[in-house]
Amino acid sequence: MQPVTVQKYWPKAVVAFLLIAALAMVVLMSCSKDEGGDGAEELSVTSGDAAAIAEARGLTPEDVTAALKTYTPTGVHDEYIMFASGGHSGQVYVIGLPSMRILKQIAVFTPEPWQGYGYGAEGSMEILADGAAGDNQLTWGDSHHPALSETGGDYDGQWLFINDKANARLATIDLRDFETKQIVKNPIVISDHGGSFVTPDTEWVIEGGQYAAPLGWEYSSLDNYADEYRGMVTIWKFDREAGRLDQDQSFAIELPPYWQDLCDAGKLVSEGWIFCNSFNTEMATGGVEDGNPPFEAGASQNDMDYMHVINLDKAIEVAQAGKTMDVNGFPVIPLDTAVEEGLLYFIPEPKSPHGVDVTPGGEYMVVSGKLDPHVTIYSFEKVQAAIAAGKWTTDDYGVPVLNLDDVMEAQVELGLGPLHTQFDDKGYAYTSLFLEPSVARWALGGPYADKNDDPEWSLVSKETVHYNVGHIATVEGDTVSPDGKYLVSLNKWAIDRFQNVGPLLPQNLQLIDISEPGDNLQLLYDMPIPDGEPHYAQIIKADKLNPWEVYPEVGWDPHTQSPSPYATLIGEERIERDGNNVEIFMTAIRSHFTPEHVEIQKGDHVVWHITNVEQTYDATHGFTIPVYNINLSIEPGETTTFEFDATDDGVFSYYCTEFCSALHLEMTGYMLIEP
Amino acid sequence: MQPVTVQKYWPKAVVAFLLIAALAMVVLMSCSKDEGGDGAEELSVTSGDAAAIAEARGLTPEDVTAALKTYTPTGVHDEYIMFASGGHSGQVYVIGLPSMRILKQIAVFTPEPWQGYGYGAEGSMEILADGAAGDNQLTWGDSHHPALSETGGDYDGQWLFINDKANARLATIDLRDFETKQIVKNPIVISDHGGSFVTPDTEWVIEGGQYAAPLGWEYSSLDNYADEYRGMVTIWKFDREAGRLDQDQSFAIELPPYWQDLCDAGKLVSEGWIFCNSFNTEMATGGVEDGNPPFEAGASQNDMDYMHVINLDKAIEVAQAGKTMDVNGFPVIPLDTAVEEGLLYFIPEPKSPHGVDVTPGGEYMVVSGKLDPHVTIYSFEKVQAAIAAGKWTTDDYGVPVLNLDDVMEAQVELGLGPLHTQFDDKGYAYTSLFLEPSVARWALGGPYADKNDDPEWSLVSKETVHYNVGHIATVEGDTVSPDGKYLVSLNKWAIDRFQNVGPLLPQNLQLIDISEPGDNLQLLYDMPIPDGEPHYAQIIKADKLNPWEVYPEVGWDPHTQSPSPYATLIGEERIERDGNNVEIFMTAIRSHFTPEHVEIQKGDHVVWHITNVEQTYDATHGFTIPVYNINLSIEPGETTTFEFDATDDGVFSYYCTEFCSALHLEMTGYMLIEP
Repeated sequence: MQPVTVQKYWPKAVVAFLLIAALAMVVLMSCSKDEGGDGAEELSVTSGDAAAIAEARGLTPEDVTAALKTYTPTGVHDEYIMFASGGHSGQVYVIGLPSMRILKQIAVFTPEPWQGYGYGAEGSMEILADGAAGDNQLTWGDSHHPALSETGGDYDGQWLFINDKANARLATIDLRDFETKQIVKNPIVISDHGGSFVTPDTEWVIEGGQYAAPLGWEYSSLDNYADEYRGMVTIWKFDREAGRLDQDQSFAIELPPYWQDLCDAGKLVSEGWIFCNSFNTEMATGGVEDGNPPFEAGASQNDMDYMHVINLDKAIEVAQAGKTMDVNGFPVIPLDTAVEEGLLYFIPEPKSPHGVDVTPGGEYMVVSGKLDPHVTIYSFEKVQAAIAAGKWTTDDYGVPVLNLDDVMEAQVELGLGPLHTQFDDKGYAYTSLFLEPSVARWALGGPYADKNDDPEWSLVSKETVHYNVGHIATVEGDTVSPDGKYLVSLNKWAIDRFQNVGPLLPQNLQLIDISEPGDNLQLLYDMPIPDGEPHYAQIIKADKLNPWEVYPEVGWDPHTQSPSPYATLIGEERIERDGNNVEIFMTAIRSHFTPEHVEIQKGDHVVWHITNVEQTYDATHGFTIPVYNINLSIEPGETTTFEFDATDDGVFSYYCTEFCSALHLEMTGYMLIEP
Repeated sequence: MQPVTVQKYWPKAVVAFLLIAALAMVVLMSCSKDEGGDGAEELSVTSGDAAAIAEARGLTPEDVTAALKTYTPTGVHDEYIMFASGGHSGQVYVIGLPSMRILKQIAVFTPEPWQGYGYGAEGSMEILADGAAGDNQLTWGDSHHPALSETGGDYDGQWLFINDKANARLATIDLRDFETKQIVKNPIVISDHGGSFVTPDTEWVIEGGQYAAPLGWEYSSLDNYADEYRGMVTIWKFDREAGRLDQDQSFAIELPPYWQDLCDAGKLVSEGWIFCNSFNTEMATGGVEDGNPPFEAGASQNDMDYMHVINLDKAIEVAQAGKTMDVNGFPVIPLDTAVEEGLLYFIPEPKSPHGVDVTPGGEYMVVSGKLDPHVTIYSFEKVQAAIAAGKWTTDDYGVPVLNLDDVMEAQVELGLGPLHTQFDDKGYAYTSLFLEPSVARWALGGPYADKNDDPEWSLVSKETVHYNVGHIATVEGDTVSPDGKYLVSLNKWAIDRFQNVGPLLPQNLQLIDISEPGDNLQLLYDMPIPDGEPHYAQIIKADKLNPWEVYPEVGWDPHTQSPSPYATLIGEERIERDGNNVEIFMTAIRSHFTPEHVEIQKGDHVVWHITNVEQTYDATHGFTIPVYNINLSIEPGETTTFEFDATDDGVFSYYCTEFCSALHLEMTGYMLIEP
């Protein structure tokens, strides 16, 4: 342990505290003895230790309260669950608050053998295959923005969506079993960023673009950038009953080749509208090697970029009326049509913004330009008024540009590198400041002004974070009713925070207590992320989640969430042969597979079904066949199918890979492949 | 939060404690005010909160001390680092103690995009290709036993080895950069378990077998089990200077078709010997579907299985003398030769044992049969005496079987399902009890007897764990000088410990304070494992690790740990063309790639080198090309090479996937592939 800067926090007062506390313990110990019994004895032993432990470990009084606010004893469950993207790990982290423990990493875009995702199990193989880009199998993703499904603007704990920025894909995760059920490839682009975000009842899932390219990513010279390169936003229909994004009811809107960034859906008063940031309205095309400004400079020239304000209800109407063009078989509302139909407007926003975030009541859109020290707050009401008044100029593509002064409600100067804003229940907003680095608390105005004692539209407080922070997440912070208890700062640089583990460092997620108003934020916990870079997160009350403990019945297919036609009960195990085709119906139960011998011929095609007939919570069995690169996770009740060609002859011991009982090592069988 | 059984821990004495503590705070607050200054003010605010927080969160006094023993404030580093296998995730977890935070997950057998492992980077692609089984690419492993390199029997913090049980492979990890450098496929088997374990100076790395098969896993009917199926132990030579296992100097020993299990190397007095458990000495072949006893029953008939005692020095001599047969090009000492040369002995051990563990001084081998309530302790000295006396019977294969009574030192009755034993510095051993479930502390005898007040060879204490525990790990517990501060219980069932995250549950690693002697173990922390099943772990003092912060020089190849011939400095960037072959030399620095345009033709073969020219700690850049399934992690100073065929034309935005600066989103470029 390296207590870096702790020593200075131990003034005489603290020593006095420890002495007094020790004295209190002595008094207490007599109390305890008066009480008698086990509890009292336990207390006398351990309470006396507390001060000594704190001193020995160099814990400051602040540390002690942080420890007590986060420590979660055995068997006690966390109050909130955070779903954080894993960045280029391609996965989703499930993290408990306030303990900041990772409870699960859900495999989404990247095959993961512990979950048996992408290692033979048919459902997962289909999902990953559906996510291919043409003939190109993709085995990872750059997962960015998780979006919990909502009902009435509140997280409902049923579904989770997440995008892959690297290849412009969306995934659907079922929160009944925390498994990915679907990956869709965006048919018209290979780069996204502004998604996923849901509408307040999860009828639509929004995916905004990022780096412009010709739609369909067809080849075209950069000389044609302004004419042929385009941005887009895609509006995916979510079929809640089927639990799938429905490509046949989805559509996109063609946008100018500015680089669209984050999006957010309107809510309550602004429901039916969506808002997307953009940057590189300069339409810089880079080329530092030829003496051009690099993108970082070329795309940072303008004082203002454009917030995209989209009338979603109108867009749906236009798309459903068939006023679309076809790109790779997918309907796209042309830019001209979007302008003509009055469903697209721009608003100037300073300067290379990253986040656009709608306040809980839907009244305001908050934008922070990362090269501007302010957050800028726009009034949805004023936007509507400006549109109604027909008061705008146009950009080069004819898109109406509203006047900043007509629609801006306020600006608050916060500091350097503001990126992303979240909200609480006390009338505060929180904005990450990448460059300082810190998280700023500031007071909202309007209907939020009387929720605290701070002046409206004013900076209240800053909390230093370690280190440079990208996104932040507050508990239930993207809903119509944020909770306001915790904030997590998703830091991008960790540097010296943890024991050195080589040149590639973990990220550092920091938990901050935001429950007290005013200048009273407390940093509680540093949490390393071991194998990914969380980009964005949403945090839900744990009691809104109600996942299954075991599958509803023995013989369940988790891919369809219905009984499997291949369900095999005890006594029904068999091996069927039809020429070179072999079909195996197997059961798994502590601690054996039936059958224990599988004898086949080289060249056979094998279809193999395994049913875990257990209904005991946590009685999962794994299954692997060496050399054939197969590994399954078969949870209680699940029926899994996989298939392979018997290309290699020999003796192969299949076995259970999940330590299930004292005789787990004996849960094995021989697959004999005759030459 | 669900405070399950906490209420009963709040007797009147505790309330009294809180009142007294509050009183102490009042006194303290006046002290604080006397002191003045920031530190004091901070104290008065927060210390007064501590008791209230504990009460509000339902923390017992035991919980409070556990919180204070484990909480690790921002910037404070952990004292110990645990390397835990990820089980069928195929990876290795790096975990800090006592905070129990996962600092990194090292990609080993499974491709992992955040680390850029297996997504194009040439070094990792070669490592994974070397791990193939014949023509079969393997993209996962069942990682089981990590082994830290040792010097003089102590962890030296330089290398880490781990096996893949599913396919019988070993990997080598370099602890200078925490990256996997090598995977070797065992040439003669496809199933291992008893490895990796190192000799006291890491000259040899041991890999014991598991499920018997004909050597080379050739087809043979189970009818020939006794004659043609075999076990084995493989002795890999480690070339420390090259940092690689050297297959050319390695060999195996043919063993009877009992299922070998864990192994351990002798140390100090027993250096030069190795010990492996076995089970299924019944040679059961299963077949429950045909009315045979299933393996779990068939392999559990005998009261005794056989510990394999191998004279390693003699085996090396025999192998180097060429007294070997050839299996798939690999030298194997035949079973007959092993017997003739006197390098292999058996000792009866009860009953289906899982662990064999050598005491820190090397005097004793401790075995626990999972179907026997005892641990059995064998004296190495007595084993030597019995061998010298030539006092043995033989098994069916002619292997000498020493007499149990001649070599047993003691038995200690512990409880149900003992599996694995670790040691401390106070003369205690610790054994996991899967079925109770708990961890038993018991007192060693002999030279360890005077290290504590407990009777030698006696059960001292048990700590209940949640729930069924497989392996355990104590700090520096496999060395000649264990530390004795912490023990981690690697539990296999978590059940109700955490918020439900669907039918597939995390594992639960529990931290236990073992620093006090006698009946005084304290459970400190429950740690969920989000995506793997740690099987075994080793824990090293953090200050023994000294990894690089950045690579030693700009243009470093981490695969060879030497300067790369493709190192590219600022100003040296270029694109070279030779017919259809294109070679790109690129640099990365905050916040741009040079070049920003790469124009190639469909059908080109592209070789692409990128040098991260930064030397700033944590200034890693990622790099991805959409659709082509490429993602790299380029740490400060690293030069990475990847190659691909330009099969798809179009416009592809490559970009940095690691959030590196405020203008990270602008760190991009266009790859244009002309049809």
